[in-house]
Amino acid sequence: MEVQYWDSIENVSRNELKKLQLFRLKETVQRASASLFYRSVFKQHKLSADIIHSAEDLQRFPFTTRSDISSHYPFGLLSVDRCEVVRFHSSAGAYAPKKGIFYTKDDLSAWASLVARSFYATGMVSTDILQVMTDFGLHTTSHGCELGGEELGVLVIPAGNISMHRHIQLMKELGATVLYLPAGMLATLVDTFYELNMSPSVDTEVRQLIVGEDPIDQKEKERIENMLKIPIYRSYGILEINSPGMAIECEQQEGMHIWEDYYFVEIIDPEKLTPLPSGEWGELVITTLNQEGMPLIRYRTGDITRIIEEPCRCGRTHRRIDTITRRTDELFFIQGKALYPAQIAQTLQRVPEVGDNYVIYLETTDGNDQLTIEVEVVDNLYLDNYGKLECLTKNISSRIFEETKVLPKIKLVQNNHFSLHNEKYLKQVVDRRKKTE
Amino acid sequence: MEVQYWDSIENVSRNELKKLQLFRLKETVQRASASLFYRSVFKQHKLSADIIHSAEDLQRFPFTTRSDISSHYPFGLLSVDRCEVVRFHSSAGAYAPKKGIFYTKDDLSAWASLVARSFYATGMVSTDILQVMTDFGLHTTSHGCELGGEELGVLVIPAGNISMHRHIQLMKELGATVLYLPAGMLATLVDTFYELNMSPSVDTEVRQLIVGEDPIDQKEKERIENMLKIPIYRSYGILEINSPGMAIECEQQEGMHIWEDYYFVEIIDPEKLTPLPSGEWGELVITTLNQEGMPLIRYRTGDITRIIEEPCRCGRTHRRIDTITRRTDELFFIQGKALYPAQIAQTLQRVPEVGDNYVIYLETTDGNDQLTIEVEVVDNLYLDNYGKLECLTKNISSRIFEETKVLPKIKLVQNNHFSLHNEKYLKQVVDRRKKTE
Repeated sequence: MEVQYWDSIENVSRNELKKLQLFRLKETVQRASASLFYRSVFKQHKLSADIIHSAEDLQRFPFTTRSDISSHYPFGLLSVDRCEVVRFHSSAGAYAPKKGIFYTKDDLSAWASLVARSFYATGMVSTDILQVMTDFGLHTTSHGCELGGEELGVLVIPAGNISMHRHIQLMKELGATVLYLPAGMLATLVDTFYELNMSPSVDTEVRQLIVGEDPIDQKEKERIENMLKIPIYRSYGILEINSPGMAIECEQQEGMHIWEDYYFVEIIDPEKLTPLPSGEWGELVITTLNQEGMPLIRYRTGDITRIIEEPCRCGRTHRRIDTITRRTDELFFIQGKALYPAQIAQTLQRVPEVGDNYVIYLETTDGNDQLTIEVEVVDNLYLDNYGKLECLTKNISSRIFEETKVLPKIKLVQNNHFSLHNEKYLKQVVDRRKKTE
Repeated sequence: MEVQYWDSIENVSRNELKKLQLFRLKETVQRASASLFYRSVFKQHKLSADIIHSAEDLQRFPFTTRSDISSHYPFGLLSVDRCEVVRFHSSAGAYAPKKGIFYTKDDLSAWASLVARSFYATGMVSTDILQVMTDFGLHTTSHGCELGGEELGVLVIPAGNISMHRHIQLMKELGATVLYLPAGMLATLVDTFYELNMSPSVDTEVRQLIVGEDPIDQKEKERIENMLKIPIYRSYGILEINSPGMAIECEQQEGMHIWEDYYFVEIIDPEKLTPLPSGEWGELVITTLNQEGMPLIRYRTGDITRIIEEPCRCGRTHRRIDTITRRTDELFFIQGKALYPAQIAQTLQRVPEVGDNYVIYLETTDGNDQLTIEVEVVDNLYLDNYGKLECLTKNISSRIFEETKVLPKIKLVQNNHFSLHNEKYLKQVVDRRKKTE
């Protein structure tokens, strides 16, 4: 008989799950109180693990936000001695909001088994060959895929940041059966197959895709599935907590099971910050239940979704979350990299010849996603001198490449250009990327 | 009492070590005979594990070369079932010689403990904070550092491919105590500290550097050590076999201990392919003694060194290898990336406007290593049209960036330019990088 679940916890009764959650909630609060940040928060609000008698008691604790993590960077939320953590993760850019995320050895093992469990739920098995197409480095995604894939016993190809042509060449050579990629890379994948006159379902062994990082809605997902003739499984995670490994679509593909033995889930009104009735759309708030190095209590993810309460046909008792409809933060994804507008802004500030205003355009040219930045020059004389102009655009684009590893196209516009235009585009990211169809 | 060695095998008697080697040599040949490649080689030469009664009997086996790996890419040297391997590594470029390197779960554990042993030999301990500055992805180095660092229990910062400014910012923020970087990045490190008006030994917690990848000679190493006032430990490894983790300098810093329980070492004359007397300089040939997924027999590394037979003052009984004086292959390193001239060549071939000849220059401008490629245009009229020229250089540089992730400077020269010059520079890599002094 085929084993249906990676871990027997996946179909434990909701009652058992709730008992485990309560136990681990208390444990988590206890552990968190060892960190500088939570010790001070708990003291200020007169809170401790002792006040938790039911899951509802958690609501007496304040939310933790991204800016709490940034302003206590790097070690303020660390709940164990520095010597006990073996891995640091963060956002990659020098000017991105600073985040220090720490893992103990046990956290890494737990992460590996969560990702293995997630992958297994999509139908991956140890004979699969998994090509990891996300960039390695400070961000967690690729490392998590590698850990989890190996735990599951698949052959992992840590392809990382290579061109789409090379990705396709590799998947053909090695016979990759599963690809893990950011949803934002799907369009380039489709286009490159088209350019090569190849059909992935015929010309490769790929039989499923797992997408993470940027949100993708159901309609867009189905459109790409129909084009590729390959199913796409959505996964969910955030840098701050084991991404990937938090939630994933099972073979039923009707929402993402969020692993409730590891994550306590709340949905709140993102304006009023009050709990929302079950099933309503709101901001996802997570309390980690099993992190040692850096437990988080009521962490505001910035992601909007809803809980699906109905039991899933797969038999897993862990509830599902619906499509992530938008992120409340500014992070955007291009060419498989996660970028913050602040990285662009602060890089531009170091170039005296340009003004304060800019617009970031995400565009598709020749099937490739392109980052274009419109920047005002301080001195309009620049615009008449081709040599100077050329030199300045090169200077800016190489500084931004240095910071983001994405080579942008720079468009210089005259001083006060933006004041003539609609203010609402200023310092914003305008996503004009072609939806693949 | 302080534990002096990570593993008790490090100071076992030479007799014990040789017995273990003989046992593992037979085992390795036995395992290798399960691969398509070795099965056919052994059949052709009537060889088997049974003929090995002493280490000298290994000389009856033919050498394995890089081209054997390439021409049997990807699975030809795999000695276990595909389902048993969990990790694939390779060179990153689409046009680099193809190499498929495979690891079982046990190979990864063994690799982790070899790197931990290596790091420990340099004086690293679990309280250290290790910043990994090599690029992650298909190549092994960063993954090996991560595995080994975690095994040793240090805090690993998987920094990867970020700018040197960001590296320095990170090491300050986190208090990194050890940096792992390619020797080729040392000059940029020194320059960037200088530019920032910082002294690493005063303004950071860094207390040692470990360098790998490209060779560095003793004099250059000492010069940089004196500038930084921080000791540098050399390590040695090759993509094909657990790099890093093969050999490292202990705290005595008089040559790199090569772990003889995992690697059987020969030094041969690279022209005549005959064994050289002990202590003479020649090509390093390695037989793996403990690899499961892809054992290699008499593998020609292409690296020139010599064995140091004298016992080391550290008490380790594993012999040392001397400075790697040159690599016989063409691989070069720039901006922390490993590149093959073939990647450049084959990318240029896809641009109809340029000729067959080119020269690759590695230069230092403004303290940064720069890749410059001189290319002939087919039609000299190009050189008179600034717009066309601009467009063509952009096209070439973006294609090369796409392939190598290094943004080159392209210099177009007239048709037949190279025939007027010394032929010996053609299709070669000219390294004009400033040695830091």
